[in-house]
Amino acid sequence: MTRYQHLAGLLSDRIEQGLYRSGERLPSVRTLSIEHGVSISTVQQAYHLLEEKQLIVPQPRSGYFVATRKATPPVPAITRPAQRPVEITQWESVLELLSSRIEGDVIQLGSGIPDLTQPTLKPLWKIQSRMAQKQDINLLSYDTLLGLTSLREQIARLTIDSGCQLSADDIVVTTGCHEALSVSIRAVCQPGDIIAVESPTFHGTMQTLRGFGIRAIEIPTDSVTGISLEALELAFEQWPIKAVVVVPNCNNPLSFIMPEARKRALLTLAQRFDAAIIEDDVYGELAWEYPRPISIKSLDMDGRVLLCSSFSKTLSPGLRVGWVAPGRYRERVLHMKYIGTGSSATMTQHVVAEFIRLGHYGPHLRRMRQVYQRNYETFSCWVRHYFPCGICVSRPQGSFLMWIELPEAFDAVRLNTELRASKIQVAVGSLFSASGKYRNCLRLNYALPITDATEQAIALVGAAIERAMLVCA
Amino acid sequence: MTRYQHLAGLLSDRIEQGLYRSGERLPSVRTLSIEHGVSISTVQQAYHLLEEKQLIVPQPRSGYFVATRKATPPVPAITRPAQRPVEITQWESVLELLSSRIEGDVIQLGSGIPDLTQPTLKPLWKIQSRMAQKQDINLLSYDTLLGLTSLREQIARLTIDSGCQLSADDIVVTTGCHEALSVSIRAVCQPGDIIAVESPTFHGTMQTLRGFGIRAIEIPTDSVTGISLEALELAFEQWPIKAVVVVPNCNNPLSFIMPEARKRALLTLAQRFDAAIIEDDVYGELAWEYPRPISIKSLDMDGRVLLCSSFSKTLSPGLRVGWVAPGRYRERVLHMKYIGTGSSATMTQHVVAEFIRLGHYGPHLRRMRQVYQRNYETFSCWVRHYFPCGICVSRPQGSFLMWIELPEAFDAVRLNTELRASKIQVAVGSLFSASGKYRNCLRLNYALPITDATEQAIALVGAAIERAMLVCA
Repeated sequence: MTRYQHLAGLLSDRIEQGLYRSGERLPSVRTLSIEHGVSISTVQQAYHLLEEKQLIVPQPRSGYFVATRKATPPVPAITRPAQRPVEITQWESVLELLSSRIEGDVIQLGSGIPDLTQPTLKPLWKIQSRMAQKQDINLLSYDTLLGLTSLREQIARLTIDSGCQLSADDIVVTTGCHEALSVSIRAVCQPGDIIAVESPTFHGTMQTLRGFGIRAIEIPTDSVTGISLEALELAFEQWPIKAVVVVPNCNNPLSFIMPEARKRALLTLAQRFDAAIIEDDVYGELAWEYPRPISIKSLDMDGRVLLCSSFSKTLSPGLRVGWVAPGRYRERVLHMKYIGTGSSATMTQHVVAEFIRLGHYGPHLRRMRQVYQRNYETFSCWVRHYFPCGICVSRPQGSFLMWIELPEAFDAVRLNTELRASKIQVAVGSLFSASGKYRNCLRLNYALPITDATEQAIALVGAAIERAMLVCA
Repeated sequence: MTRYQHLAGLLSDRIEQGLYRSGERLPSVRTLSIEHGVSISTVQQAYHLLEEKQLIVPQPRSGYFVATRKATPPVPAITRPAQRPVEITQWESVLELLSSRIEGDVIQLGSGIPDLTQPTLKPLWKIQSRMAQKQDINLLSYDTLLGLTSLREQIARLTIDSGCQLSADDIVVTTGCHEALSVSIRAVCQPGDIIAVESPTFHGTMQTLRGFGIRAIEIPTDSVTGISLEALELAFEQWPIKAVVVVPNCNNPLSFIMPEARKRALLTLAQRFDAAIIEDDVYGELAWEYPRPISIKSLDMDGRVLLCSSFSKTLSPGLRVGWVAPGRYRERVLHMKYIGTGSSATMTQHVVAEFIRLGHYGPHLRRMRQVYQRNYETFSCWVRHYFPCGICVSRPQGSFLMWIELPEAFDAVRLNTELRASKIQVAVGSLFSASGKYRNCLRLNYALPITDATEQAIALVGAAIERAMLVCA
């Protein structure tokens, strides 16, 4: 690295960290030359490089300024949902999001689909092919209601990483995490009950509550530390809340990882008010930190936590292999599973069990964490570059989802309609609220490949947002 | 065939047809010799043969008598369930039945598993293997909520055989028929509602009602003509029944095919009382008659019939590929599917679609119908032979299930417990009732291979029943 590149990197870091703020004048060439003991021309070259990267702009006769739109956008403030139980709406919008999957050539910035192109996934095909060649009739028959023993053993082993001590008998295999959440909610609640959720929260959970006639109380949630325990406590005091649904690790859609102390405090609170915790850990294994963050289930002594997960975000959503560790609700969960789908598919369970048993899962996870972290860096540059200023962006600590908050008056539903012509789709924020809040927010998936087409899509979204914001203003 | 064999066959037919009834004295050797113009020794040889087959017994100095236990048992009389809505119990017994699948070496006379050993199923493996070799990433991703278009097209085409005129858009793919029934029930009813069911009825349906807080009114059902329309009408007049769940084709567990006129009358009744019909057709394609019996859906003009089915009984239960044609309840069904499992597994849908597209499905179905019809003949001989008299047996017209009614005081639950030592399991009748009726009944699966081991199992069940009946008496 040459001197000017080094200096440019240093200045760029300071801009990133907010030491030089958006629109602020940068030190003069002479000042920097003295400060860093480099030549005038080195500083000039460094400034030129930053200008090329559109991080700074020259003002004739005034020197260089931090480009206004290039500063790292702040994270969204803590949310402020209605603090009372509400009926859930938004089904039509969810259906629209799901329907857009039909057209294959849409760039799905709004989906929760992982990157399926990595070579570490290849063994999945080989295993499948070998199984087909063996022609084992057992693979065609019903499996038990609990699920394949060998798979449950592997899952129990995997959960050690999140601090759990579970045996195969503590696990029930499901048709994706979706079914795990669905059976958990129904195992714990009756129609008319109230469940507390983070706000925003995964639309699948929300719609499940709606479908079973359960009301949601949305709890203010911080985009860095997670659900507000203070607000949750107040809600517990006011309402007969049966359970709390949380995504504490790599939250969907806010992407935070809840600090361990807050996980403990949440469990204590649930104990005090005798509520169940439904813990959605579907993205937990994609946390970038190592070892991965603990689950609340790992702290659970009295079986009140139902830990839900799947291989949809780590291996393949199309397999529909998920699981739940239901604690004390095991029999109710089994009943709910039986009446929903019966046994899970046999062959796909075998494929996943074999993939893990042969040692392919660890290396694949490691690779995916790297891929997503690298993708995140690129995507956040693109967002800074192409999106207008005045937005807030979440700071993912894992997985592949990014939450963007636009000014209050912004309408992401209209944005999505406008983007349809360009065959781009984003996830509208209002999907993640019981009552249609967060219409000014959107969720982006950065598992998409780093290609010109993807950059172009982000640029188009940014331009559309800019146009819409001009109209708002 | 020799003369005496011919004569023995003729006599045996007359016994089967009830011309010579159980315990009745047969014509003397001399009479028969004159009647058929054969020698005395030919008649004696024929009688010896029938004696060997245990169809007749000699009485010293009185001649031959039809063996009491060899007569064709009558069909069960129309059932008499409680004619009021009831809460559903029996979950523990269902769980026990499902759990017994865990031990691989149990002879599962009680299961609903089809014969998976036939060569016409082989292409399924080849298709799977070819797909694995192609490594198409789309197979790993989420499918749409509706399900794979190519599969829905094939299903729409298949339903023509039952008289339907459906398009791909009228079909929603599900995770087995179990999910099809589950989403249909939830699409049509709210907790606290009442649904009318045949009695006995499939335990999966019953437990689904229980799980969603829906009460069942069990309607008397005839083992030849199906649900009593008179009783159903009375029930409609008395209770606000939201829907009727029926298995009109190859009923589970009674195996009847409802006559077409009664199907029409049932639909008219549902129209009159504005109720939905949830039609479980999962065994319908296994009817022995050709063309296959029509579905009630084929008569449906106002979208009130939700036709549910799957490939679990025809191809492979382990694939978990089912479907529903939800009529006017399409959007509710989609919502219920979304909140239960989300999209269905992608690869398995492709496998089934390809199996049908390549023309393997028709020949496979034809073979399976033949196999099951032949199996039925053997099994019903075994049952006649090994089971005591005083029982009633259903007369299947398709599929691979047989319903056996024992004297009122008999306890099939205890029988199952006793059989456990011999590693044999039957389906206890009480599973098929909301309130634990039919404890004196059992359901047998004759899709099992015709082997000595299977015959031995039937013999053991028969002997255990005989012992238990001696205790009862």
